[in-house]
Amino acid sequence: MGKLNELDIVRRIEKKFAKPAKGLITGIGDDCAVIAPALGYEIVVTTDTLVEGVHFRRDLSPPRLIGEKSAAVNLSDIAAMGAKPKFCFLSLTLTNKIDGKWVANYLAGFEKVLKKHGVALAGGNVAMAGRDLSFTVTLMGEVKPKLKVLRSGAKPGDHVFVTGTPGDAVLGLNLSLKKKKHYSTDERKLIKRHQAPSPRVEWGMALAKSGAVSAMIDISDGVALDLTRMMDASAVSAKIDLMRFPLSQAAFGILETGKTKTWETILTGGEDYELLFTVREEKFRKVMELIRQGKIDASPIGLVTKRKRKPLVILDPEEREVNLSRLGFVHGV
Amino acid sequence: MGKLNELDIVRRIEKKFAKPAKGLITGIGDDCAVIAPALGYEIVVTTDTLVEGVHFRRDLSPPRLIGEKSAAVNLSDIAAMGAKPKFCFLSLTLTNKIDGKWVANYLAGFEKVLKKHGVALAGGNVAMAGRDLSFTVTLMGEVKPKLKVLRSGAKPGDHVFVTGTPGDAVLGLNLSLKKKKHYSTDERKLIKRHQAPSPRVEWGMALAKSGAVSAMIDISDGVALDLTRMMDASAVSAKIDLMRFPLSQAAFGILETGKTKTWETILTGGEDYELLFTVREEKFRKVMELIRQGKIDASPIGLVTKRKRKPLVILDPEEREVNLSRLGFVHGV
Repeated sequence: MGKLNELDIVRRIEKKFAKPAKGLITGIGDDCAVIAPALGYEIVVTTDTLVEGVHFRRDLSPPRLIGEKSAAVNLSDIAAMGAKPKFCFLSLTLTNKIDGKWVANYLAGFEKVLKKHGVALAGGNVAMAGRDLSFTVTLMGEVKPKLKVLRSGAKPGDHVFVTGTPGDAVLGLNLSLKKKKHYSTDERKLIKRHQAPSPRVEWGMALAKSGAVSAMIDISDGVALDLTRMMDASAVSAKIDLMRFPLSQAAFGILETGKTKTWETILTGGEDYELLFTVREEKFRKVMELIRQGKIDASPIGLVTKRKRKPLVILDPEEREVNLSRLGFVHGV
Repeated sequence: MGKLNELDIVRRIEKKFAKPAKGLITGIGDDCAVIAPALGYEIVVTTDTLVEGVHFRRDLSPPRLIGEKSAAVNLSDIAAMGAKPKFCFLSLTLTNKIDGKWVANYLAGFEKVLKKHGVALAGGNVAMAGRDLSFTVTLMGEVKPKLKVLRSGAKPGDHVFVTGTPGDAVLGLNLSLKKKKHYSTDERKLIKRHQAPSPRVEWGMALAKSGAVSAMIDISDGVALDLTRMMDASAVSAKIDLMRFPLSQAAFGILETGKTKTWETILTGGEDYELLFTVREEKFRKVMELIRQGKIDASPIGLVTKRKRKPLVILDPEEREVNLSRLGFVHGV
């Protein structure tokens, strides 16, 4: 594949992705995809657009990882509902700066992540158009109504948890922007977290299944902003304690250099695609048991309080209140 | 609204569109929309991206009509399945050349078309990004499995029908490109057909309900290409007769000027968003009855034949075979 041709790409996608999938009656190739919903399940749907120069840069990330990321960021929204992802729709808007090899590598990365999570590509659209390369992914999942987790269920007294080690992605982005010739192993780990985040689909489903979670959201715009969103949706506030905040070895090393803005970077940087969730006091031990068993990786970082003027209070390791100059990196809904 | 701000637009959309809708458990504002599928129905899904400069031009069409069109082109895909449109997801990618007033007018047009067809906006995404203004719309609909119409059901002997007067859209586009100071009433009608096509949702549902239709597709890339697609999907061929081809008064006037390429323009221009469908011989009278009753507007234009080397043979009013230099305007799947 050299020069791009819409029909060639469509045929390539059909060939690569057209496989039978449970519940998919008609996939790529008709005016619409046709899906038979599973009895007793609700359907969850999310859509997101990644635009070159804003959400990714071709000089910082190879096409394969951009493909992985464009699937991952949507899977993360499905994870935050406690739902199982099922069907995917991909709108590719390409430019004349992109060649066939780039598209093939992009699709390979995209397919890898769909495959990992058992998701079928059910439809989409290819346009050779304009100056900006962009991808819009729509994902459908399913969840039993009783297991579904919204942003709005947090109550005063609930514990606040976060998965993984948020902040790694933005530290990785900052490192990759330096375009150094050589990166240490730790640095490469951080960069990978930014380039190819792991959507926490399995963890979201395990948490939903446990019945222990009262509210959940995924972190796309930073812990501070997304926790604020969850507190706003639940009409409560939260107090979090940076002493308990999970940092990766690599992030800890950077924090130790003592630069004053590092905490702010970690809390507001965005693109972690980890999960923030709240847990009733009586379910706290159940979640700690899931963590102990290795079924999820998460840490308690604070408590939900009654609604106050501030939706979020952050205490640093010396118990001084941290004031952020901005809440987070806003690039979407 | 002057300068654009993503959060302002999101709030504006929430305020404008957040209404209860049957089957919509959770709409805009969580990580995903949550939908309760109706028992006994299948779900149909389509997605399409419109990019400035390729699919629309701001100098040729006001924002309100661009909003109408971005809803209409997706509704047309739902119509082609014989399905009822239900839920919509809108990804707006804006640029710094767009102001708040433009967005407000765009949304007003978008809302008008959704409202007309009883569709609820269930989610979406706003990004201030890049150089190209673009909109990706994903639409979900529902259909009873027995009523659903695919592209692949045409059989030799079936009659080929088309709704409305295809070709008007491309003739309208060509007229608007001339940027004349004054247009005649007929010319303005053609321009309107291009700027704000009417998705044939009611007709698609009426045809599906009649049980008379064996295959259906919407015309986005011209009669020639989309009829070829339907014939390919059904593994048959078609012979159509331009003597019977429905032309609007306005198109007829242009055709009368005798320019040799006019038929080719009409058959390959695209963006008609009419429906092409096939009907078994024994159901022919049933469809003619629907037309007589004013429930649909359609015309028989030819017959399905056994699969031949050519998927499509076109005869002009003098029964000479028309050879098109290209099949149609390809800008998507």
